Amino acid sequence: MNLEVMGKAAQQAAFELATAATAQKNKALAIIADELEANRELILAANAKDIDAAREAGMTDALIDRLLLNEDRLAGIANDVRNVISLNDPVGAELDTRVLENGMRLSRRRVPLGVIGVIYEARPNVTIDIAALCLKTGNASILRGGRETFHSNMELVKVIQVALEKAGLPAASVQYIEKPDRELVSQLLKLDQYVDMIIPRGGAGLHKMCKENSTIPVIIGGFGISHVYVDKTADLSRALDVVENSKVQRPSACNALDTLLVNEDVAEAFLPRLAERLNKSNVTFVADEAAYGALEGKAAELRPVADGDYDTEWLSFTLGVKVVKDVDEAIAHMRKHNASHSDAILTNDLQSAERFVNAAGSAAVYVNASTRFTDGAQFGLGAEVAVSTQKLHARGPMGLEELTSYKWVGVANYLSRA
Amino acid sequence: MNLEVMGKAAQQAAFELATAATAQKNKALAIIADELEANRELILAANAKDIDAAREAGMTDALIDRLLLNEDRLAGIANDVRNVISLNDPVGAELDTRVLENGMRLSRRRVPLGVIGVIYEARPNVTIDIAALCLKTGNASILRGGRETFHSNMELVKVIQVALEKAGLPAASVQYIEKPDRELVSQLLKLDQYVDMIIPRGGAGLHKMCKENSTIPVIIGGFGISHVYVDKTADLSRALDVVENSKVQRPSACNALDTLLVNEDVAEAFLPRLAERLNKSNVTFVADEAAYGALEGKAAELRPVADGDYDTEWLSFTLGVKVVKDVDEAIAHMRKHNASHSDAILTNDLQSAERFVNAAGSAAVYVNASTRFTDGAQFGLGAEVAVSTQKLHARGPMGLEELTSYKWVGVANYLSRA
Repeated sequence: MNLEVMGKAAQQAAFELATAATAQKNKALAIIADELEANRELILAANAKDIDAAREAGMTDALIDRLLLNEDRLAGIANDVRNVISLNDPVGAELDTRVLENGMRLSRRRVPLGVIGVIYEARPNVTIDIAALCLKTGNASILRGGRETFHSNMELVKVIQVALEKAGLPAASVQYIEKPDRELVSQLLKLDQYVDMIIPRGGAGLHKMCKENSTIPVIIGGFGISHVYVDKTADLSRALDVVENSKVQRPSACNALDTLLVNEDVAEAFLPRLAERLNKSNVTFVADEAAYGALEGKAAELRPVADGDYDTEWLSFTLGVKVVKDVDEAIAHMRKHNASHSDAILTNDLQSAERFVNAAGSAAVYVNASTRFTDGAQFGLGAEVAVSTQKLHARGPMGLEELTSYKWVGVANYLSRA
Repeated sequence: MNLEVMGKAAQQAAFELATAATAQKNKALAIIADELEANRELILAANAKDIDAAREAGMTDALIDRLLLNEDRLAGIANDVRNVISLNDPVGAELDTRVLENGMRLSRRRVPLGVIGVIYEARPNVTIDIAALCLKTGNASILRGGRETFHSNMELVKVIQVALEKAGLPAASVQYIEKPDRELVSQLLKLDQYVDMIIPRGGAGLHKMCKENSTIPVIIGGFGISHVYVDKTADLSRALDVVENSKVQRPSACNALDTLLVNEDVAEAFLPRLAERLNKSNVTFVADEAAYGALEGKAAELRPVADGDYDTEWLSFTLGVKVVKDVDEAIAHMRKHNASHSDAILTNDLQSAERFVNAAGSAAVYVNASTRFTDGAQFGLGAEVAVSTQKLHARGPMGLEELTSYKWVGVANYLSRA
């Protein structure tokens, strides 16, 4: 396995994909979907090997469930690919077209990024998902999934490559780094001659490693402490619903609530009612002194906040709570504690809302809505490759457009610069 | 000089700038312009020190001219700042606003990037230029100019900081890395906790150093081999004008023509006429065998192409020439030889034009126009911070909008995710 060779092949494939018609890319996607179903038995057999190995290694049932494929899930994956066919192809669209004084017609034309390297978690559906979205946008991809899905991914990538060739597109449009060797990831991160973007999907450690070692632009994202600030003017009954939704609908998601900030004027009124509500979900409250006072005797699980708690992305049924004086103190807390993903204010006051929206440094900011909305499907993007928390290129949920760049196109009549 | 302290101060300043009204930012710009004129004598005295040192160090007159300030130039710089006042402030604009089925009003709102680090050449006007554009877009900046402009830049930054305070904005909105120590640049590149983007303006070495060492996203750009392809259907008389303009109008610019590709069917007709034209500018032709044959006896300065010539950004009155079979061979050559900045096709054939525009991997692609057009002012952007040749975030000339990011803003009525 030579990464240099893979990079070069990916770049060549990207050249072809860049000028492939939407119909041809869609044809390849349709064949991929069909082949996934036609090769069901081979894929499920490969997946069974991964599951066996995971069981042997003592993996938890929850994690094994993420690895698992079955007939239903495979049919779902094939249908997800068919869904990508129905999305608009952003490539070729012209933006900001204008005619300059000198007669030049100047546009920014959307083009594929080129080659995208994606390092992702041990979930076989992600392999298909990413490959399909990159293909739709005319990008070649170099994939590297979690090692626990090795056998499944090998089979899935084989299916994709056969389908690509049937559609008349280069098999190297989608390649997979087979060896679990971490050294290969390091090599991938240095392939700036061939690879245009790296998307790491995973924990903070993976992102840090990519940021520090990659000579290729990296999309950093997927984590950050999420806050809800309950202002003194909030409708408290309705605020209960939104806070509950933010925290318990899916605590393992990156947009789930981590720290609740409550205005001091309503802390005594709000927190006991919230405890009553969240006790049903066995939420543990981690509270500062003022919040502790309001929650004591009401919250079933309660402990005083300790160093680092407000910097913890819980990903579980734990909730940090802090009482603050006003929206400015809420903002100051958020700036100190990595608010960069999804944050919300619950308020009926226009100025507080505007102040919060402008000052919060997060990829997504909500007024009177759950932090759980940060999601490509919820935003109507039709797809989501990752959630970016950096500020360059793309921020928040990344859909198809975020997998493109643009080139300036100037058309004139033998024009020289004055 | 502690970079960590500078970074922290810049981030704090960026928090204030992010919510500063356009009127306040414009007021600061107006005061900067006035103070530049009011402090003319101090600035010119500081500049004289730089000029003396440059002379002593044996710098060429051409380079010294880039360092030089005088009354006229200073007035010009002040007027450039006033011009920035007249540009639209992109911050706060909402893009792609839509109302989702659930009633949420969702927008992407333009916001400043935060803190921008700029490493740039020894030209004092760039200090003011970059500071003004960052300020206009609500970004704090950390500047580091060429050491030959040390005294001038110290004085200019002092003027800026005094003006900022007079306008009620933090002085740390614009900071300067004073020491010529290269180690400080390395420290800047690791300040990812505080700095959001690095713009290196300079040669390939600086870009490579930033790409390899920065943990902050870097905008790579400003170089690349520029090509003009003369198709067999081109109007040759008019093509002469465009090629001449691309090559000789300002050979030291990054968008000046490096390699001319000529279709074999018109090489014999075109190249001798071109030689006649470019001999007047003392252009040296560096030709492949076929082109050499057509140019021999016509071009005053002619030598056969050698290894690496087609990979050379000449920045001078030298022109690489190669005869190719068709547009596909032209594209193949360009892919091999780092066409990433500005490239043009001269043709009357629609299909050739479309093929070239789609396949060229450059930031700016022209049909029947000079490569010299790649420029923020020419594009009507009103300003130019740098020219990006990378594909993420911004490509080509970067104006004010390219100094912004966006945040998603969702406004609803106590809405939970279903």
